[in-house]
Amino acid sequence: MKKTPHKVILTEDQMPQQWFNLRAVMKEQPDPMLRPDTLQPVTEEDLAPIFCKELARQELDSADAYIDIPEPVLDIYKMYRPAPLIRAYDLERALGTPARIYFKHEGNNTSGSHKLNSAVPQAYYAKQQGLSGVTTETGAGQWGTALSVACSYFGLGCDVYMVKCSYEQKPFRRNMMNVFGANVTPSPSMTTEAGRRILAENPGTSGSLGCAISEAVEAAASGTGKRYVLGSVLNQVVLHQSIIGLESKIAMEQLGEYPDVVVGCAGGGSNLGGLIAPFMADKILGKKNPRIVAVEPASCPSLTRGRYAYDFCDTGKVTPMARMYTLGSGFMPAPNHAGGLRYHGMSPILSKLYHDGYMEAVAYEQTKVFEAAVFFARHETILPAPESAHAIKGAIDEALRCKETGEEKVILFGLTGTGFFDMTAYENYLSGRMSDYIPTDEDLQKGFASLPDIPQNRA
Amino acid sequence: MKKTPHKVILTEDQMPQQWFNLRAVMKEQPDPMLRPDTLQPVTEEDLAPIFCKELARQELDSADAYIDIPEPVLDIYKMYRPAPLIRAYDLERALGTPARIYFKHEGNNTSGSHKLNSAVPQAYYAKQQGLSGVTTETGAGQWGTALSVACSYFGLGCDVYMVKCSYEQKPFRRNMMNVFGANVTPSPSMTTEAGRRILAENPGTSGSLGCAISEAVEAAASGTGKRYVLGSVLNQVVLHQSIIGLESKIAMEQLGEYPDVVVGCAGGGSNLGGLIAPFMADKILGKKNPRIVAVEPASCPSLTRGRYAYDFCDTGKVTPMARMYTLGSGFMPAPNHAGGLRYHGMSPILSKLYHDGYMEAVAYEQTKVFEAAVFFARHETILPAPESAHAIKGAIDEALRCKETGEEKVILFGLTGTGFFDMTAYENYLSGRMSDYIPTDEDLQKGFASLPDIPQNRA
Repeated sequence: MKKTPHKVILTEDQMPQQWFNLRAVMKEQPDPMLRPDTLQPVTEEDLAPIFCKELARQELDSADAYIDIPEPVLDIYKMYRPAPLIRAYDLERALGTPARIYFKHEGNNTSGSHKLNSAVPQAYYAKQQGLSGVTTETGAGQWGTALSVACSYFGLGCDVYMVKCSYEQKPFRRNMMNVFGANVTPSPSMTTEAGRRILAENPGTSGSLGCAISEAVEAAASGTGKRYVLGSVLNQVVLHQSIIGLESKIAMEQLGEYPDVVVGCAGGGSNLGGLIAPFMADKILGKKNPRIVAVEPASCPSLTRGRYAYDFCDTGKVTPMARMYTLGSGFMPAPNHAGGLRYHGMSPILSKLYHDGYMEAVAYEQTKVFEAAVFFARHETILPAPESAHAIKGAIDEALRCKETGEEKVILFGLTGTGFFDMTAYENYLSGRMSDYIPTDEDLQKGFASLPDIPQNRA
Repeated sequence: MKKTPHKVILTEDQMPQQWFNLRAVMKEQPDPMLRPDTLQPVTEEDLAPIFCKELARQELDSADAYIDIPEPVLDIYKMYRPAPLIRAYDLERALGTPARIYFKHEGNNTSGSHKLNSAVPQAYYAKQQGLSGVTTETGAGQWGTALSVACSYFGLGCDVYMVKCSYEQKPFRRNMMNVFGANVTPSPSMTTEAGRRILAENPGTSGSLGCAISEAVEAAASGTGKRYVLGSVLNQVVLHQSIIGLESKIAMEQLGEYPDVVVGCAGGGSNLGGLIAPFMADKILGKKNPRIVAVEPASCPSLTRGRYAYDFCDTGKVTPMARMYTLGSGFMPAPNHAGGLRYHGMSPILSKLYHDGYMEAVAYEQTKVFEAAVFFARHETILPAPESAHAIKGAIDEALRCKETGEEKVILFGLTGTGFFDMTAYENYLSGRMSDYIPTDEDLQKGFASLPDIPQNRA
C-alpha cells in the first residue's frame, strides 16, 4: 500500500472562496490594452458594448489581490470541484525517476476541461446583468462545451462560432453543445461581416480561432442584447482559473510538499496562468523560487518563436490590441495540428512574466506529445486531452532529467482535460499517420507581417 | 449557499477495504449454475479452464460476507475512487419536488463507467495466476474499455470481441481500447467456431452480446494460457461492484441520510447489484425497508417480461447455465436500441431477489430515457450514459410522485457512467430521429423458444 495518499481532494469547506489576481503582486504590470482607433488604453466604458460590466471591471482591475467568488458560482463549482491533486505513482515507477510527480486533474466534468472554471462566472455575470445570451468562439470545442454547460445551468442563450475544421472533424463536440441547448455555427460563416470578408479573401479556409473570435465579437456588438465571452487570453479568465492553482497549493500543503517545477500547457494561457498563480506570486514576492515552465506546440510557438508586440486578439482585427507574445493575428497554424493550443497570441499577463524572466518556455512536436499521452494513459489510467499531453511531455522530460541527476524534485503539472473527443487524433498517432510540422522562418515572417504598424510596435 | 454539502467524497482512509457478498445474507440462495452436459452444479474445477482460479472461487462462494480487496487493487481503485455521492439540488428545484435526490457518480474515470471496479480485480487475479492475457466481449464498449485500462496497468494481454454493430458505429470506443493496447475483433468473427457457426446461420447479423461472449469464452478455453472475464451478470462481478453501494452508504451516513428508494439501471445487473448490496442486506435482515427499483429498457425487458428459467449466458450456448430472468439467449434486441442494457438475461442474484419480492422493476422506452438524460444534463451539468439515464428516468418519476404526495423521500440512484461516446444517439434524439421499440409477445416467444429444454425448466 502506498504510504502517502494517492490523491488529495479538498472538502467543499476547504475550497477557496476567492479568486487570486496575479496582477496585484506583479512588480511591473502588463502593458495596457489599446483602442485600435485612438491607440489609447481601453476603459471600462470602451469594453461595455462587448463585455459584461463586471467582467470588464475584472479585466482592468490590477489592484485587488483577492476577488470574492459569488455564491451561485461556488454552488456550481461544487458540482465538479474541488478537483483532485493526484500523485503519479505509476508514471514515476515506469520512468524510474526519483522525482515526485503530481498533477491537478481538471477533466472530471462534462465539459472535459478546466474551461468550465471561467465559463461559470462569465455566464453568471451575464445573467446578473439581465442579458439574453452570450456569444463566443471555440476551436477544439472545449470552451464552447464548457460555456454551453454553464449557460444551460443559468438559463442563458449561447451562440458558439466553431472553427470550421473542428466543426466538421468533431461533430460530437457540436452534438454535445446541442445537448446543452447552444446554437453552433461553423466559422467563418456568412452570418457576420467579418466572416463574409474572410470568406471572400480566402474561400477555402478551414477557419481559425482568431477568425471565429471576430465573428463572435461582431455578433455581440450588433445590439442584440448579448455580450461576448472568451475562454482564454484575457486577464479575467486567468483570474477565474486561479482556482486551479489555489486548490493545488492547499492540497500540496496538506501533503507537506511544494513544487520545485510547475509545468503547464500554453495556448492562450488560461490554464497555465491559473495553475501557476499562487506559485508565481511566491516567486515574485521572493518567498519561494519554483521554476515555471510553459509548454507549447512546435507548430504554434508563440512564446518560443513569437514577438512581444501589440497585436489584435482576432484575425478580423475587431478587438482591442494587447501587448503579448504573438505570431501575428494572420498566422494560420498547419491544418495537420491535432490538439488545440492553436491560438496566435498568449495571455498578456503570462507574456509579461515570460518577458521579465519569471517563466521558461519549451515547444514540442505533436508526435512526441502523443507518445507521452499514450505512455501516461497506460500507466495512470487517464486518457489526456492532447492539450494536456503537452504538459505531460514537459513533466516527463523534467522527471527524466531528475533520473540523470538523482534529484528528488517535486514536479507539479496541470492535466487540463480528457481526450474523449480526440480519438481520431489518437488513432492517427497509433497508426503512424500523424505527422509533425514546424513553421519555417518564412512562415513566421508572413504572420509577423500582419502585426499592426503602430508606434508602440516600432519602439 | 447550500446548507448541506453538494457532495460527499470519502477520503482514501474511509474507503471500504473489503467487498460485500450479498449472497451471505440472503435467506435463500440463487439456484446453482449447471453444467450443460450433466445438468449438475458446476464446481471450481469445472470453471477452471474458463475463469481464473480465484474468480472461480469467488463465483461459487456464498458463505463469506466480506472479502478483502487486495492491496494492488486498492492502489488502482485510489486512482479514481472514492466516487462522489452528489445531491441533485438543481434537478430537485427544476422538478419542484420535496424529495431529496442523491446520485452516486461512477463516471469519473477514463473507462467512463463503473465497469472499471470489476475490471481491475479481474485483471489483477489473472496477472497473479501468471496468465498471458484475458479475453472478453463488449457491447456498447464500456466493459471493453474498462478491461483495457486495467490490463494496460497490470501489463496483461487483452482480447476484446466487440459486438459488430458497436464496432462499426462506435469506432472511437475501439480506438480508446487501442490506446490502452487491447486487440479488438468485431463479433461474430471468423476467428472462432462459435462465430463461424453464427455467421453461417445468419450472415447479415450485426452481432449480440451473447454471441460475443461465445467467441470470447471459446478463445479463452482454446489453451492459449488466457482466461475469460465478464463484466456483468456473474456473482463475482456483483461482489466487486459492491464498492459502489458500500461507499454510498458511508457517504449517506455522513449526511445523516438513508434512502427510502434506491434506483439503478439493469442490463446484466452488475451496477444495480453493487449499488443496492448494503441496502438490500439491511432489508433482508429487517434493519431497514428501502424500496429497491430496477430500471430496464422496454426493448430488452428481461425482468418485467422475461421468464425465470435456466438459460445459457451466451448465444452460442458454450457457457454454464444459470437460473435467471431471461428473454432467451436467442433473443436479439432491436438494432435501433441506442444505449446498452441489451443483455438477454439478468444476474442470478438479482433474479432471485426479484423473484422473492425484494425488488421492483420498471421498463422505459428509449425516447423517454433520453428526454430524462437531456433534462438531467442541463440541470446537473453531467452528460449521462444512456444506460445511466434509465436510472435517472426512474428517479425523476419517483421524485414526481413525491411532488404529488408531498412526501420528502430520500432517493438514491446510480449514475453508472458518462455519455461521451453516445453522441450519435443524443443527436438522433435531439433531431427527432430516435424511435422506440417494444417487442411483441411473438418476438418474445421466439426468444423463449431458445431456452434449454431441461427438466429444471419444465418444473
